[in-house]
Amino acid sequence: MTTITSPQNPHLKALRRLHTKRERARSGTFLAEGEDLVAAALDAGREAVAGFRVAGSALGDDHFHDVERSVLQDVSALGSGSRVIAVYRQQFIAPAGPLCVYLHRVGDPGNVGTVLRAAQAFGASCVALGPGCADPHSPKAVRASMGAIFSVPIARAAGPQELPGERIALAADAPEPLLGSAAADVSLLVGAEREGLPADVIALCERSARIPIASESLNAAMAATVALYEMTRQPR
Amino acid sequence: MTTITSPQNPHLKALRRLHTKRERARSGTFLAEGEDLVAAALDAGREAVAGFRVAGSALGDDHFHDVERSVLQDVSALGSGSRVIAVYRQQFIAPAGPLCVYLHRVGDPGNVGTVLRAAQAFGASCVALGPGCADPHSPKAVRASMGAIFSVPIARAAGPQELPGERIALAADAPEPLLGSAAADVSLLVGAEREGLPADVIALCERSARIPIASESLNAAMAATVALYEMTRQPR
Repeated sequence: MTTITSPQNPHLKALRRLHTKRERARSGTFLAEGEDLVAAALDAGREAVAGFRVAGSALGDDHFHDVERSVLQDVSALGSGSRVIAVYRQQFIAPAGPLCVYLHRVGDPGNVGTVLRAAQAFGASCVALGPGCADPHSPKAVRASMGAIFSVPIARAAGPQELPGERIALAADAPEPLLGSAAADVSLLVGAEREGLPADVIALCERSARIPIASESLNAAMAATVALYEMTRQPR
Repeated sequence: MTTITSPQNPHLKALRRLHTKRERARSGTFLAEGEDLVAAALDAGREAVAGFRVAGSALGDDHFHDVERSVLQDVSALGSGSRVIAVYRQQFIAPAGPLCVYLHRVGDPGNVGTVLRAAQAFGASCVALGPGCADPHSPKAVRASMGAIFSVPIARAAGPQELPGERIALAADAPEPLLGSAAADVSLLVGAEREGLPADVIALCERSARIPIASESLNAAMAATVALYEMTRQPR
């Protein structure tokens, strides 16, 4: 293939549009930047819809477009000098056990991405995103996931009523500390850093529990990481 | 006081120099941006060496300089539109128990700051920074610490030989999972995400342990968070 040298190239214009949530939602696709993420997609068996690499780099596969270095920099959403950018299809499942993490109004994409990463690390079955969450397919969330975006099943949920198994709300003021559960399926519910989970969400859960800490709060990613660790540290 | 309207004001020039590690080290000071961090300093009883606020905002105390908004934006290291920026003295202690976290070649300032935050959350006695760590007083680390920079004791350490108590190296390939310790003083050693801890560091420790995970690795902040949780989840 010939090397793309114009920022006006229609493929690149389409790629740039994926910086916006609206276009990601419309197209059902998202982009991943950098060799590590493209390798993670490959490991997870996810095929690129389209790919772009620095001309002469041989990154990606035979279908990737060669792009002049400065032109590729220009379409980067992260400005990190990526040598390869590829487009993938979004995939969603229904919320599923045995170990589901539900996020409620976690608006920071870095936190959402880190929760995906923690879900992968501790073998969670699903990350379910409730109302007000950052787009898990935004460039920042994808980068923070360190590739977990390709392997962790992602769900959307309108609220706790859609979650499987015993629902445990993480709440800073819950009397009981979080401990393992005897239930076959568990959903862990995590709120945003300052707000926590609203009372009506907690009311729909079988129980609430706290992570014992000395300071005021953990962010959603730290709370989810610790909760997933707690639920998996003993054989389930 | 009169409002500072010139970016060439000598106080602001001194403030801007604190964006560099060299000047922070030379002066033994650092800066914190934003109302939350300045409030955290106040809560921790740390007095500002100098302070700068948007003119008319009444942030900080009577000694804070009023600065024209656009001029204050210009000296922000984070570009986040902070309405207040203040300078504080760095404080270091010697590594101390009962629960010390040691970081080895953790070069990402966001990770170092998040470890400080986790140390605060789980009541660690000290975060000791080994060779190759990011400056905990860099603007990014200070922001990631969410104010923990002001309350968590920070130490420098040349290596594990300077750490108190039973030294436990977190290593992905250790045969034993991390569990609590019966020792009065414990030091948890955490390496960088890809490299982990080098063999000569592990060799100086009483034992090594792993955090049981399904995926390849956690970053240093997630590993330290989980390890601190594990060490404090049972009454010590």
